Amino acid sequence: MKILGLDPGLGTTGWGLIEAEGNRLRHIANGQLKTDTTAELPRRLAHLANQLDALVADRKPDTAAVEEVFVNKNPQSTLKLGQARGVVIMVAARGGLDVAEYAARLVKKAVVGNGNAEKVQVHAMVARLLPGAPIAGPDAADALAVAITHAHHLASKRSGISR
Amino acid sequence: MKILGLDPGLGTTGWGLIEAEGNRLRHIANGQLKTDTTAELPRRLAHLANQLDALVADRKPDTAAVEEVFVNKNPQSTLKLGQARGVVIMVAARGGLDVAEYAARLVKKAVVGNGNAEKVQVHAMVARLLPGAPIAGPDAADALAVAITHAHHLASKRSGISR
Repeated sequence: MKILGLDPGLGTTGWGLIEAEGNRLRHIANGQLKTDTTAELPRRLAHLANQLDALVADRKPDTAAVEEVFVNKNPQSTLKLGQARGVVIMVAARGGLDVAEYAARLVKKAVVGNGNAEKVQVHAMVARLLPGAPIAGPDAADALAVAITHAHHLASKRSGISR
Repeated sequence: MKILGLDPGLGTTGWGLIEAEGNRLRHIANGQLKTDTTAELPRRLAHLANQLDALVADRKPDTAAVEEVFVNKNPQSTLKLGQARGVVIMVAARGGLDVAEYAARLVKKAVVGNGNAEKVQVHAMVARLLPGAPIAGPDAADALAVAITHAHHLASKRSGISR
């Protein structure tokens, strides 16, 4: 099963595609979708949607996952993130994908084994779990982490082991 | 010129379409796009996008406008609104429309003549400026108000009068 992890953002949306067979994971590809910071919001959102549409059409994932959002930042940042996140989730859903959501704590637990892990530990563990994968940047690493989380969750569900 | 005003929301997105010729306004149609509150977020966002795509294809507006968002609410509401707003703006932009944004104060000023007007005054004035238009609800009225604001702004620009 091909799992697309997504880390939405208006400026940079990370994505990571992995192949999961039970508990075996294989890296396929990852990257970061960028929008022009000097362009107006509608054009940026449309550009983000177009890039993600093309990615889904090209890579044909079977399912998708995003991290639940932590909203303790300032309201303008939350609004901006929400706008990008809405577009990303909607494009994936219209592309025929289920989109699972995982709390940050669950992602850390699934990847590092500790729900309070630091981001740097998560990124190091992603690189270890998917050896040889050149990682495009922190947003791509976050996207791969949520894809790994989804793979673990699906494997646990199949084996009847709860998280 | 056909102007589509939009008032984005996950549960209800108001829309209002008017024809503007200089300072003359004519109501064409208005309504409210709803999503199923019991469905999951990705399905709701996809349904919202599909409805708005159909509306734009059917009504063929020339341009669109939304109100800028007031983000003093709780962060979860801001995130939810942001997600719907991102989808609405993106669908309009991908539909080939420019999407203008107006601060709430400007909408009130354009419609009522007072930037501190109450919502009820705005709705009453919308009904007066577009006589005979049955208004689908408060979100549709807000959408018509922002369409009227955009019409005034475009008319002022043409006549060289600044707001």
